[in-house]
Amino acid sequence: MSKTTKDESATDKQTLSHTEQHYFDSYDHYGIHEEMLQDSVRTLSYRNAIIQNKDFFKDKIVLDVGCGTGILSMFAAKHGAKHVIGVDMSSIIEMARELVELNGFSDKITLLRGKLEDVELPFKKVDIIISEWMGYFLLYESMLDTVLYARDNYLVEGGLIFPDKCSIHVVGLEDSEFKQEKINYWHDVYGFDYSPFIPLIMREPIVDTVESTLVNTTRCKLIEFDLNTVTLEDLSFEANFQLEAKRKDWISGLICWFDTVFPAPKGKKPVEFSTGPHAPYTHWKQTVFYLSDDLECEVGDVLKGKLICSPNDRNNRDLDVKIDYEFVPKGSKERAKKNENTYLMH
Amino acid sequence: MSKTTKDESATDKQTLSHTEQHYFDSYDHYGIHEEMLQDSVRTLSYRNAIIQNKDFFKDKIVLDVGCGTGILSMFAAKHGAKHVIGVDMSSIIEMARELVELNGFSDKITLLRGKLEDVELPFKKVDIIISEWMGYFLLYESMLDTVLYARDNYLVEGGLIFPDKCSIHVVGLEDSEFKQEKINYWHDVYGFDYSPFIPLIMREPIVDTVESTLVNTTRCKLIEFDLNTVTLEDLSFEANFQLEAKRKDWISGLICWFDTVFPAPKGKKPVEFSTGPHAPYTHWKQTVFYLSDDLECEVGDVLKGKLICSPNDRNNRDLDVKIDYEFVPKGSKERAKKNENTYLMH
Repeated sequence: MSKTTKDESATDKQTLSHTEQHYFDSYDHYGIHEEMLQDSVRTLSYRNAIIQNKDFFKDKIVLDVGCGTGILSMFAAKHGAKHVIGVDMSSIIEMARELVELNGFSDKITLLRGKLEDVELPFKKVDIIISEWMGYFLLYESMLDTVLYARDNYLVEGGLIFPDKCSIHVVGLEDSEFKQEKINYWHDVYGFDYSPFIPLIMREPIVDTVESTLVNTTRCKLIEFDLNTVTLEDLSFEANFQLEAKRKDWISGLICWFDTVFPAPKGKKPVEFSTGPHAPYTHWKQTVFYLSDDLECEVGDVLKGKLICSPNDRNNRDLDVKIDYEFVPKGSKERAKKNENTYLMH
Repeated sequence: MSKTTKDESATDKQTLSHTEQHYFDSYDHYGIHEEMLQDSVRTLSYRNAIIQNKDFFKDKIVLDVGCGTGILSMFAAKHGAKHVIGVDMSSIIEMARELVELNGFSDKITLLRGKLEDVELPFKKVDIIISEWMGYFLLYESMLDTVLYARDNYLVEGGLIFPDKCSIHVVGLEDSEFKQEKINYWHDVYGFDYSPFIPLIMREPIVDTVESTLVNTTRCKLIEFDLNTVTLEDLSFEANFQLEAKRKDWISGLICWFDTVFPAPKGKKPVEFSTGPHAPYTHWKQTVFYLSDDLECEVGDVLKGKLICSPNDRNNRDLDVKIDYEFVPKGSKERAKKNENTYLMH
């Protein structure tokens, strides 16, 4: 295998849509890579999963989808892979080339700049796909479509994907004071009525860290994706949920997050991490969907609902989310609420 | 004047470059407008300046460049303007239309969607230009070019621009511990040598709030722009500075910020605000340029230098900044340092 050179670049920015260009350009900023690398929950989970599976990585061909600075490629190369191919659209791959050479992996790692769909890989098939493709709420601006393309076009029968299981979870949130302040602000903005902003602000989910003390219901797994079998169509989904109030309180919104699980050798506990409010900080934080109602609940009251998620028609990296819910508290019919809320993650 | 309608839109997104599209799209997010409106130093300064000049605004034609949600247009209309034209590229102007109608200004405010250079104004000349065009470090992603276009094409002789004076300032920063941590991180990233990142990370100025206790030199005004006379060419500038150490300490970087002054009636103190580390928080925060050296200083030691700023060739909303400096501390020639640092704000 020859040393990676800039000639291998398959980039043709002219062929990218505006949205794609914007998406890839954002990774030209070094600060983003600093934040992702320093998210040690994220980065160490990948390293630990590779080390746990080093017998499987031994002498294997690995494809790193969206390799960024090449950290996962270097983990794989260091822990036994025969060869790693890293592919990324962003100019950060020029830095990855320098790091790969500096750290002595030039003969083990081939870096290709371009869209995976466009570049020509030096191997017809790979044994392992590694990728850190997850976005906020798992699917927002995620690269999962490219990972699935890699799986369908390059992964050998019986090959492994790291990670291979991701699930989205939901729980109730008590945050009514902050929510009311956020809403009320618009009634008098320097003397003007800005109330038309309210429904729009409410439609934008908030990505932020939520203190676990604000969680006030049981949790519910909305959906799980098995990357070995999931299809693009599955990423548009409807999922029912049922949450039970754990205290006398108000439910003002829902908190969503994702959990990630890596393949494990037989009989071993898999490496996994959570981005939930109960788990250590990650740069994905949590995603809050405010409900149009504040639901007054007693212990054991049940909030039932359905979350519908699909890529936005105009921009398929944006997400349309709809949450329908029905809340019938025990013994108080006048507090029953039923509503439909729509959101746009953009 | 007819009511504003969507028909007046002059947008043709097809004619925008990718960079322009990205820039304008970012203002489609309501959260950005929430942050700007809630920056009360910013918003109240505009309101106070308009109220202070209400005799001048009376029966005048006003152009609001980059009107956003229309807040400045409504201030002007409320405080005496005969008519206000608000122009903005972003879809936020559809919200502005709704707010203008709701607040009873439909007959006083005309909103046009499009680039100012492309739209046709309902008046040949305007008496006043108002615009909140300032970016980080004043000039980063700023709309000043459009304000100057407005001035040169629409402002009557003797017309006023709100604000009309902006200056950029610099002061020394003691932040060496954080800076060293930020640098040292790259020497061992999960066992790999990432040191090629260091010069790149150092090239990216940091936009953040700096505690005023970290300021350790006198301040120096780098440059002042008079919007009545400044030209596009003036925005590429070289400015000398000279800072005097106020304590025995280390100078590890420079903090820059801008001050803004509005026109005032004769004999009145003008409305102004500062975005410096000594002033109340604004969403512009401060901009930190780390120096390649940490300069050990005694009281009275002088740091002399030159800051050169110009739009980046590839993307003219990005800024190239170069800082040359010479530090010769009194009585210690071995601590003398001379260096050139280049930065890219992107």
